[in-house]
Amino acid sequence: MDKKAFQDYYPDDYSHCYGCGHLNIRGHQIKSYWDGDETVASFTPQSYHTAMPGFVYGGLIASLIDCHSTGSAAAAGYRAEGREMGTEPPLRYVTASLKVDYLRPTPMGVPLELRGRVKEIKGRKVVVESTLSAKSEVCARGEVVAVQLPEKMMTGST
Amino acid sequence: MDKKAFQDYYPDDYSHCYGCGHLNIRGHQIKSYWDGDETVASFTPQSYHTAMPGFVYGGLIASLIDCHSTGSAAAAGYRAEGREMGTEPPLRYVTASLKVDYLRPTPMGVPLELRGRVKEIKGRKVVVESTLSAKSEVCARGEVVAVQLPEKMMTGST
Repeated sequence: MDKKAFQDYYPDDYSHCYGCGHLNIRGHQIKSYWDGDETVASFTPQSYHTAMPGFVYGGLIASLIDCHSTGSAAAAGYRAEGREMGTEPPLRYVTASLKVDYLRPTPMGVPLELRGRVKEIKGRKVVVESTLSAKSEVCARGEVVAVQLPEKMMTGST
Repeated sequence: MDKKAFQDYYPDDYSHCYGCGHLNIRGHQIKSYWDGDETVASFTPQSYHTAMPGFVYGGLIASLIDCHSTGSAAAAGYRAEGREMGTEPPLRYVTASLKVDYLRPTPMGVPLELRGRVKEIKGRKVVVESTLSAKSEVCARGEVVAVQLPEKMMTGST
């Protein structure tokens, strides 16, 4: 597959995130893509990512929603500016707030589908609503307020 | 140290959680304790639990707040019933909703302190507010709505 994910466009300095950095070999390496006006990602948990036996750990669900949503925020930021991802200057977002409602237990052993929708873009802020589904059933629903990376978190800034 | 953590009282069937199960050797194994009317836990992230270089991954922060708060909910449930933890029948809580506000970047390389306060106990529901601090500075603030484990998630239930 030659299609690049949102996260593959992040500059290397910003690609160490445990959730979605392609340079973090211990991390989840989440990959998100456009699907029309929605964003999608798929992730299959490891056997140890468990809550109660048979069900997925809620902290992982929060992590997947978080990274898929901030990736979606970046993609939406570029799209709003009419730019291709990867063009300069880079846009990278961090999470200001994360809300997850766990609607039903999420089963282990199947791929989880994340779908994001941009609810609002205003200035440096993007609000993304994401769902996490298993077997076409929505198990969790999240909202992320993402903001453009502040200068003080940028590598090499003084 | 012979003091048992809340999570050490969970029955073995409920001790596989990636965040706090003492039987999950790949997990975080969070340990929470009473400190007066508050609950406390400490956790030092691994080097790969990074967001931007130098800062802790937000999904891990959400996970820590989640497990510390559900553990606090269990402890509060026992205390409200005037029972010692570990007595029958076991009380075990899962997360209905999780909200985290990221107030400032959380630095890597230092222990993180979690402190929980029970905001409400009503029926099967416990609401816990938790903070996550580094170097005595609050970096994130969370609220967890925890509910007693539903029958369908209990191992061996029919």
